[in-house]
Amino acid sequence: MKFSFRVVTKDTKSNARVGILKTPHGVVQTPSFMPVGTKGTVKSLTPEELNDLGAQIILGNTYHLYLQPGHKVVSSFGGLHSFMNWQKPILTDSGGFQIFSLGVGKRKLAQGIHRGMGRPETSEGDEKSLCEIHEEGVTFTSHLDGTTHTFTPEKSIEIQQHLGADIMLMFDECTYFPATHEYAKAAMDRTHRWASRCINAWTKKEQSLFGIVQGGIYRDLREESSRFIANLDTPGVCIGGVSVGESKSEMRDVLEWSIPHLPEDKPRHLLGVGDIDDVFDAIERGIDLFDCVSPTRLGRMGHVFVRDPKKRFRTDITNSLYSKEKGPIMKGCDCYTCLHYSAGYVHHLFRAHELLAYRLASIHNLRFLVRLVDKIREAITQKSFQHLKKEWLNT
Amino acid sequence: MKFSFRVVTKDTKSNARVGILKTPHGVVQTPSFMPVGTKGTVKSLTPEELNDLGAQIILGNTYHLYLQPGHKVVSSFGGLHSFMNWQKPILTDSGGFQIFSLGVGKRKLAQGIHRGMGRPETSEGDEKSLCEIHEEGVTFTSHLDGTTHTFTPEKSIEIQQHLGADIMLMFDECTYFPATHEYAKAAMDRTHRWASRCINAWTKKEQSLFGIVQGGIYRDLREESSRFIANLDTPGVCIGGVSVGESKSEMRDVLEWSIPHLPEDKPRHLLGVGDIDDVFDAIERGIDLFDCVSPTRLGRMGHVFVRDPKKRFRTDITNSLYSKEKGPIMKGCDCYTCLHYSAGYVHHLFRAHELLAYRLASIHNLRFLVRLVDKIREAITQKSFQHLKKEWLNT
Repeated sequence: MKFSFRVVTKDTKSNARVGILKTPHGVVQTPSFMPVGTKGTVKSLTPEELNDLGAQIILGNTYHLYLQPGHKVVSSFGGLHSFMNWQKPILTDSGGFQIFSLGVGKRKLAQGIHRGMGRPETSEGDEKSLCEIHEEGVTFTSHLDGTTHTFTPEKSIEIQQHLGADIMLMFDECTYFPATHEYAKAAMDRTHRWASRCINAWTKKEQSLFGIVQGGIYRDLREESSRFIANLDTPGVCIGGVSVGESKSEMRDVLEWSIPHLPEDKPRHLLGVGDIDDVFDAIERGIDLFDCVSPTRLGRMGHVFVRDPKKRFRTDITNSLYSKEKGPIMKGCDCYTCLHYSAGYVHHLFRAHELLAYRLASIHNLRFLVRLVDKIREAITQKSFQHLKKEWLNT
Repeated sequence: MKFSFRVVTKDTKSNARVGILKTPHGVVQTPSFMPVGTKGTVKSLTPEELNDLGAQIILGNTYHLYLQPGHKVVSSFGGLHSFMNWQKPILTDSGGFQIFSLGVGKRKLAQGIHRGMGRPETSEGDEKSLCEIHEEGVTFTSHLDGTTHTFTPEKSIEIQQHLGADIMLMFDECTYFPATHEYAKAAMDRTHRWASRCINAWTKKEQSLFGIVQGGIYRDLREESSRFIANLDTPGVCIGGVSVGESKSEMRDVLEWSIPHLPEDKPRHLLGVGDIDDVFDAIERGIDLFDCVSPTRLGRMGHVFVRDPKKRFRTDITNSLYSKEKGPIMKGCDCYTCLHYSAGYVHHLFRAHELLAYRLASIHNLRFLVRLVDKIREAITQKSFQHLKKEWLNT
């Protein structure tokens, strides 16, 4: 199957839309949420479990797979699909985001300080950057063993072509937050220059390549970047840099500045977003695809999704409140976990640090999000998207 | 279904036998290996996976479940079957072994020194015992939070009746190795006195109760204990104390001293044994049931089972030898892992510390052992047990 995208239905009161994305490994009904399989595995789960919970497409991280086991190793196993035994579509990112977030001041990131990202000047003390950005690309230090590596646009595409995903992303500079207008423009211009190099390096045409809109939180830059990326001869578009510290209102602004300049007939992927309210906001503004580690990462921490906006749609299953709970994590949930186990049992598994806990919570959270997006798709088709949004967000 | 046991076939050249054990939660074809689900979960696996790999019965640990989440909590969920959603047979141990091994000198145990087990006198320095044995029972310190608890025969049975397993074990004293004849006799006599108290405390007759033969490595004591346990009015018999430091030849001696004194018509469980050669030796001498944590524990360490006696039937999948291996862990293996993934992928998951690694290795190891015992059962029926043993052990 060749790559194609077609909008099937549009909402009447918003830019929300339902589409069909065809890829060499099958069809994706959009909007669609893709679980993140960082190192060739969606943490703790098998491909069968992902399939059973309704995942249509997953994301693999180029940075991680390049460092371990290495893209040539993955290629020698027939590519990522074959290596991890997932036969449905895969998207790989460009490695850029991880270089800037993992290669730079991990300690700062752990403290919630994202400002080091992509900062070109060396800062003092422990903010010292572990990646150096130059016109050619980015030189960075591996978070695994401290070795030095350089990613260029050409290298990123080469790696992604070895991985063999259905969709590849262009190598971009993900700027720190808040970047000055001057720096955000310099980074955006560099990203645009890199885009042309990515297209030149793109030889395996059975794999699709998506460009990435950058420009920080500046309207003029986002508009310029959107027009530039829209005009590239690529089958899809991403919006990047909205998950690294901006507020939710800034995310909405970025989408509203960018999307009107993007072509109607190309799929739009919003990188790294997955909160329930953000999902509604993004789809409403015309986003077709998104990915986020939060369902699995939060799940492994015991934060399981529930349908309650007052609790920000999550609850801590390790709380002693749940120790005697005979019912499932969430009434009405159709996930494997909720159909087979009590909340009290999942609570026990977390308290006892049992490995099954991480699986059961990840399955629940992923199913929760995938099912929500299924419902959103249905609502768009039935012209009831706004109703569903109100019902869920209680607004 | 009520509890019953029937020997179906006996080997002509050994004491190996095939039997059918009926329990309230279903039938177990013996010989049978039971995976260990310490805290209400066989680590990392779901009940469906256990079922798919052919597990007929699993073991739960009374000591662990008493401490967390507590037997009354498990009972309030309808018992262990319902709590963990495993609807096939379960055996719970008495808690004795864990009290003596976990409650006593964990540090020493970690160093491979098992001598502290069940030693009644307080020893010097860090060998100081954390459990105190008295006629009434054993007072011990929780390995979780340092709180003090007392297990008596009555308490062990009460807990096990709350857990609701199909088979319960009597509370016994698992002696240290090597115990003197004097101490082994004192411990055995106490175990026998405790046995009568266990039988008196046993009120839920739908749950079966198995006695436990002790007596250290002394022939006269093992014979005496076997005769004593054989004469109790209980539906099955265990042989204990052979997994705490004795050599393989001593295990064989213990079996040969004990089994002739045990009734033919009761199932015999060998506690804590699961090495491939031991499995053959035990079944050959008339053992019907056994359990061991090694398939799952070794699996989580990356030691996966292979059919090679020279390698002691295991190999380290984390070895770089496997990094490019396209074939499965073991050719001809029919486990989920070997049917779906290359050894190279499992190697990568271990190197990347991915949670899926522990699942895939545990499934492989458990299936390896369950399938071997299936083959042994078939061989006994077809009078080819000795042939199979030679073929496997290369002797």
